[in-house]
Amino acid sequence: MYTIKDLQSIVEKELSAQQFVEQPEGLYLPIEYILGVGGKRIRPTLCLAGCYLFNDEIKPAIKPALGLEIFHNFTLLHDDVMDNADVRRNQATVHIKWNPNTAILSGDAMLIKAYQYIADLNTNSLPSVMALFNQTALEVCEGQQYDMEFETRQDVSVDEYMKMIRLKTAVLLAGSLKTGAIIGGASDEQANLLYEFGENIGLGFQLQDDYLDVYGDVETFGKAIGGDIVANKKTFMLINALQLASGDLRKKLDEWLIEENFDAAKKIEAVRAIYDKVGVADLAREKMHYYFNKAMQALNKVDGKEAMKEDLRQFALKLIERSR
Amino acid sequence: MYTIKDLQSIVEKELSAQQFVEQPEGLYLPIEYILGVGGKRIRPTLCLAGCYLFNDEIKPAIKPALGLEIFHNFTLLHDDVMDNADVRRNQATVHIKWNPNTAILSGDAMLIKAYQYIADLNTNSLPSVMALFNQTALEVCEGQQYDMEFETRQDVSVDEYMKMIRLKTAVLLAGSLKTGAIIGGASDEQANLLYEFGENIGLGFQLQDDYLDVYGDVETFGKAIGGDIVANKKTFMLINALQLASGDLRKKLDEWLIEENFDAAKKIEAVRAIYDKVGVADLAREKMHYYFNKAMQALNKVDGKEAMKEDLRQFALKLIERSR
Repeated sequence: MYTIKDLQSIVEKELSAQQFVEQPEGLYLPIEYILGVGGKRIRPTLCLAGCYLFNDEIKPAIKPALGLEIFHNFTLLHDDVMDNADVRRNQATVHIKWNPNTAILSGDAMLIKAYQYIADLNTNSLPSVMALFNQTALEVCEGQQYDMEFETRQDVSVDEYMKMIRLKTAVLLAGSLKTGAIIGGASDEQANLLYEFGENIGLGFQLQDDYLDVYGDVETFGKAIGGDIVANKKTFMLINALQLASGDLRKKLDEWLIEENFDAAKKIEAVRAIYDKVGVADLAREKMHYYFNKAMQALNKVDGKEAMKEDLRQFALKLIERSR
Repeated sequence: MYTIKDLQSIVEKELSAQQFVEQPEGLYLPIEYILGVGGKRIRPTLCLAGCYLFNDEIKPAIKPALGLEIFHNFTLLHDDVMDNADVRRNQATVHIKWNPNTAILSGDAMLIKAYQYIADLNTNSLPSVMALFNQTALEVCEGQQYDMEFETRQDVSVDEYMKMIRLKTAVLLAGSLKTGAIIGGASDEQANLLYEFGENIGLGFQLQDDYLDVYGDVETFGKAIGGDIVANKKTFMLINALQLASGDLRKKLDEWLIEENFDAAKKIEAVRAIYDKVGVADLAREKMHYYFNKAMQALNKVDGKEAMKEDLRQFALKLIERSR
């Protein structure tokens, strides 16, 4: 019997057993580097969980699960080039450690490697796994495109924002669970319920991240507070504040958004005060709980090992609990 | 009965019937743009030819054939970013017309689209087509990596160079033919013979390109003569000259390679004179014919429609004849 923790250990063990470095090293070393930098391996773990819910045999899902982790890290690699980010998980990003051309080309090779792992399936589920992955991967690109477009827009609506985070974050979590379910032999209906669970958890998770950037504490958040505020990132918090603040409050918010020379702590404090006044925190918490409940309802309808369902519930709870 | 020309028309017609532009347009417009800029559609045409050799029914090969063209154009898109090339086929490249981030992300979406088309196969050939494409696509990345590494090296050997052009150019032509053959139901042995034909034609074709940059005329070459010489590109010609020229001749060659302010026509004339003296032209022609003959020997062993084999022979001849 596997717990989620067991599955995560299996992912770590299998991932570190892979050999990514071939000739020419200049192409393959960055792949090993970024995969070695760490991360919680959430997507491959969810893939194995999706399979194990319906099937005692998880072996056929291992390679596709690793493929999903390789894909996720590929998106980080290319996103970091596009966002000009120098550091990820306290390590230099690939385009800094090597150069932008290496980041582009090694990323391309990584996307192909992801396909190689995902297609490593002897079962007749290959066509549906491929179709799901193709769609998911395109959607992740669409999400990144919207995210970049939003940077230069002041009129992003909450609906547009939710669509963007669905594409950029939620569909890959959902697709990972569904991939496992397909390989495990679940019916379409069951696989789709698991997708729904993952999608709503993904939406809730991102809202949570937006919320914690403003109201979290460093320890539970795991990164510095206020980064989104300093960077004027169009999060759920800022988008709602832009819509709700009026008069002097809106004027003050706009001033902070265009101010180029500022003390970070001061800006964070001032913007947080505006968020407090317009009640953004409640909106975020409400919406988070809405998605969390939707996720739970979907999971409740899943037939599958009860112990693993309970594990997934706890997994979701842990995410939502960071904000209490 | 189809000729190669018929197959090329089918490719053009099917390609222009595809709808690539979805939301967000910023992601998908560059894909339509680069695919619309033109090209000879050699890879999808060879894919259909490979199928038609063994099977009257070419329909199952059409989507994968288009996928190979999409993949080829994806490599051009990302290569142009890495090589900082402003123009391709007389049109602005994507990173110039849009910006580098768009070129990276639309390229990623294009690679995924390529997979979507290649996996659009209802037959049981999906696993072998996927495995072949994964390997080929990785090899093309390896070729680009070597090509970039060679730019800053003066000691590239002829063997290394041949390996690079095999990866960067030949394997995709070979893989296109073999993909068609697999879908057409050819045996492994037959499909591999076609691969061998394509690989050797690809090697011959690249050597030809290197040769014509020095000794061709603008009309048959289709682009300006001497571009490789001006850019110090490590072609078969330059690599051999670097190995064969000695004493004063080598000194003169080295001087031209480091000279930063020069009259292009003068440099081309001077370097060509060095090539003449060390006999690089003969070496290139010999090697071209060696690969051409190897290609023909492989093709001769292919069982398949004789008329299409003859068409492929003529296709190969046309390539080699540009240099006579």
